[in-house]
Amino acid sequence: MSSKTNPGNFFEDFTVGQELPHATPRTVTEGEVAMYTALYGGRFALQSADQVAQDLGYPGAPVDDWLTFHIVFGKTVPDVSLNAVANLGYAQGRFLAPVFPGDTLSATSTVIGLKENSNGKTGTVYVNSVGRNQEGETVLDYCRWVMIRKRDENAPAPAPVVPDLPDRVDPETLVVPGVDLSAYDPRLIGQSHRFGDYQAGEKIDHVDGVTIEEAEHMMATRLYQNTAKVHFNQHTEGEGRFGRRLIYGGHIISLARGLAFNGLAPAMWIAGINGGAHTAPAFAGDTIYAWSEVLETADIDGPLGALRLRTVACKNRNASDFPHRGDDGRPAKDVILDLDYWALIAK
Amino acid sequence: MSSKTNPGNFFEDFTVGQELPHATPRTVTEGEVAMYTALYGGRFALQSADQVAQDLGYPGAPVDDWLTFHIVFGKTVPDVSLNAVANLGYAQGRFLAPVFPGDTLSATSTVIGLKENSNGKTGTVYVNSVGRNQEGETVLDYCRWVMIRKRDENAPAPAPVVPDLPDRVDPETLVVPGVDLSAYDPRLIGQSHRFGDYQAGEKIDHVDGVTIEEAEHMMATRLYQNTAKVHFNQHTEGEGRFGRRLIYGGHIISLARGLAFNGLAPAMWIAGINGGAHTAPAFAGDTIYAWSEVLETADIDGPLGALRLRTVACKNRNASDFPHRGDDGRPAKDVILDLDYWALIAK
Amino acid sequence: MSSKTNPGNFFEDFTVGQELPHATPRTVTEGEVAMYTALYGGRFALQSADQVAQDLGYPGAPVDDWLTFHIVFGKTVPDVSLNAVANLGYAQGRFLAPVFPGDTLSATSTVIGLKENSNGKTGTVYVNSVGRNQEGETVLDYCRWVMIRKRDENAPAPAPVVPDLPDRVDPETLVVPGVDLSAYDPRLIGQSHRFGDYQAGEKIDHVDGVTIEEAEHMMATRLYQNTAKVHFNQHTEGEGRFGRRLIYGGHIISLARGLAFNGLAPAMWIAGINGGAHTAPAFAGDTIYAWSEVLETADIDGPLGALRLRTVACKNRNASDFPHRGDDGRPAKDVILDLDYWALIAK
Repeated sequence: MSSKTNPGNFFEDFTVGQELPHATPRTVTEGEVAMYTALYGGRFALQSADQVAQDLGYPGAPVDDWLTFHIVFGKTVPDVSLNAVANLGYAQGRFLAPVFPGDTLSATSTVIGLKENSNGKTGTVYVNSVGRNQEGETVLDYCRWVMIRKRDENAPAPAPVVPDLPDRVDPETLVVPGVDLSAYDPRLIGQSHRFGDYQAGEKIDHVDGVTIEEAEHMMATRLYQNTAKVHFNQHTEGEGRFGRRLIYGGHIISLARGLAFNGLAPAMWIAGINGGAHTAPAFAGDTIYAWSEVLETADIDGPLGALRLRTVACKNRNASDFPHRGDDGRPAKDVILDLDYWALIAK
Repeated sequence: MSSKTNPGNFFEDFTVGQELPHATPRTVTEGEVAMYTALYGGRFALQSADQVAQDLGYPGAPVDDWLTFHIVFGKTVPDVSLNAVANLGYAQGRFLAPVFPGDTLSATSTVIGLKENSNGKTGTVYVNSVGRNQEGETVLDYCRWVMIRKRDENAPAPAPVVPDLPDRVDPETLVVPGVDLSAYDPRLIGQSHRFGDYQAGEKIDHVDGVTIEEAEHMMATRLYQNTAKVHFNQHTEGEGRFGRRLIYGGHIISLARGLAFNGLAPAMWIAGINGGAHTAPAFAGDTIYAWSEVLETADIDGPLGALRLRTVACKNRNASDFPHRGDDGRPAKDVILDLDYWALIAK
Repeated sequence: MSSKTNPGNFFEDFTVGQELPHATPRTVTEGEVAMYTALYGGRFALQSADQVAQDLGYPGAPVDDWLTFHIVFGKTVPDVSLNAVANLGYAQGRFLAPVFPGDTLSATSTVIGLKENSNGKTGTVYVNSVGRNQEGETVLDYCRWVMIRKRDENAPAPAPVVPDLPDRVDPETLVVPGVDLSAYDPRLIGQSHRFGDYQAGEKIDHVDGVTIEEAEHMMATRLYQNTAKVHFNQHTEGEGRFGRRLIYGGHIISLARGLAFNGLAPAMWIAGINGGAHTAPAFAGDTIYAWSEVLETADIDGPLGALRLRTVACKNRNASDFPHRGDDGRPAKDVILDLDYWALIAK
């Protein structure tokens, strides 16, 4: 009977080179966009107003890049991470084409690495996940690796394959939209700074804090059709390690991005994901703050420049002292997200 | 002054044959669809992706059948059940035409039966409710009966009329869409089983559990414009029988349907409602699980077959032992929904 | 570093005549409309159904007038009221053109008055805020005044300028849509009363109560892109005056409007805002009730008449005794909103 239900893949179900076409393509509409606004309060002008987008040369406002990410990510969960112990990292992520309301997204992952852990109980699975629109055009391409349980601890270990993933996306490989800045109005964008106003090493406290409610993170995670059990079931999580439902790490990314408007309003395009770690769990009732550091600036061709940013989220303490790592190199207490990405900004 | 407000109909306000055209037609949009996804996390491919729907021969993704049901049901509340003591049952429900974003739904009920209870305080009202789109086409037709308070206990009892409602909808009368399965891809649907893979008597545990929050069920119930007081007012419900806001029974139906994807992913069409009972109340904080049994299979004409399903929802315990009824024939402890319906699935 | 973030304007940053073009234009879609329905459960037929709107001569259902108000208001917050101590009043508000899904709203405020308080720590700023659509057409025009902190208590006081704001909008200046009532069906509207059925002095108890959740008011306030800190941050508000997150006053307006359907269903157009006060704070867990009084009726030209209404919201007590002011003229205990506005209704 249980043969009808999906138990998810265990470590020994994966093989290098395996293709996983994920279920349930999804049409993204203005409905998702509004829900996303209600969840994160985003005010980035390109995604907020058709008129601003059209002035920049778009047919209309594209959806938030992180909404695209979460939907593609959500599709991978039933096949990749239903039996995950931990989401270990991201690399080599690129947003390759904008997504507009009406587009239908589907996703496929390819297994690019496998390494059993010495305890024989778990292993790391590396996947390259690709999101495509209804034209078959790739909108997002990224790698992540997760620690997955074995079904049978006696199953033999596969030959280890660890992909060589770069620390950062080469900015020359970012896909940069050919926007028209002739009607660019900083007053409507919300901040007058441009590419040249940001310097490597600069740190920005995003000031505000936002408290998370159970209803919010669950509605968000369902909006992404992400089915990871730990986010939804207090009956079992109440007996679990934390006694609480765990919040989807992507919810924190989007909360931090929403907060980051205050200081990064003109950085309206997310172009690449260099890496990221969910360094500690978050729970309903936590208040999230964020700060960002400019790690690098890349004066790429065209009207936009690239800022390599680290955005750090912390909980139940403000970010005015830029908490990041302790002397031991480990994430500082209360730091819950350490995200390294490329954003684009008008020159 | 109070003459301007609607006190709802009491038992003695109903007469057999009475027509109740319900207020406030409603345009269903992509906004409602996104909200519904955020509330229940549905992944049924037909309703999730325009592309999948178009491959099946639809102009685009239709809205979830239960969303249609809840909106039509919500319209009936101010006229039918504002003074209800209990929602007693459903029968003879059929989904007759798909609803698409942009369609405007309106609803009318006809009183088809009346029977005063021996206590002289309440009576049962049977209605046939019909939902129509802007073309006047019927999209949903169902019967339900509710126990309604009398305004005046001394009002005379009407002649009892109890309609003869069948235990099940005849599968030959189901409206079956003439879908094209030539591009049907089980990998995108999320499960490879087809009509022939399901047998009568088979039970499926839908495995996962989901905890309900007050904000979620209230937003859902308002989305359906359902005004039943018990769902919204802690100030009065806190003094009431349960001390809590009661959750709209339809919210449980949709949660169970969302969970049922895991095992019934290809059963993407709800075609008929044979019966259903909300056997116990649910409250915020409860965790809902569900299981289904195939009661009957009907090999109707065309590319789709019909599965008669019982889906049972229970709370704060998993469904792996398929809780249903006790030896006394009464609903087992913690069972909150017992729903009998027809779903269609590719042959 | 903090030079990249917006600290908001302080009292001494404002000058009479100053123009503040607000950031982030916003496209309002069917998504916002659905979210708004989920938050407030509105059933006003004009805003609920394209078909009803088209019968009245509109191209489709316009968005709720208060949704327009909240979005325009939200835009003004970062420039006008980020450092506000209190939102003191509204006057001379008019809805000048309907807003439809797809319209892009932007907002500009002009400072029309300034008066430093005798304590030298704060001052009152009067602004006239104007919301426009993508055609440049004004959709909403209103005045409000707020008490704002000074950055530097030693900064010199400006010459006081207090604008002469009328107690009420002259009904002859309301913009009245030229609707066609030939297909007007009171059964679909939900109530049979028309303009002539309402008399000055009449009071209507809207009967129902609705309890507010944290997730709801925060999602609402973010939907409006309103960034006022007090609504979102339990970490700091927990240490503040109330120990709780404060609910955006506009959330109460919309809850009261939703409740007011029961008694004012045909009053489907909000045309003017005469004044309003948020007389006490509301918090999650509070249950809101509302009542309305007809203050005045104006038999303006055309198919619609104007009702000047006072809608009062109170919390954690019903409104059946029409709580308003005490003998001392101050708001009665538990009254949280006192709103004076013009609505239009079919003659």
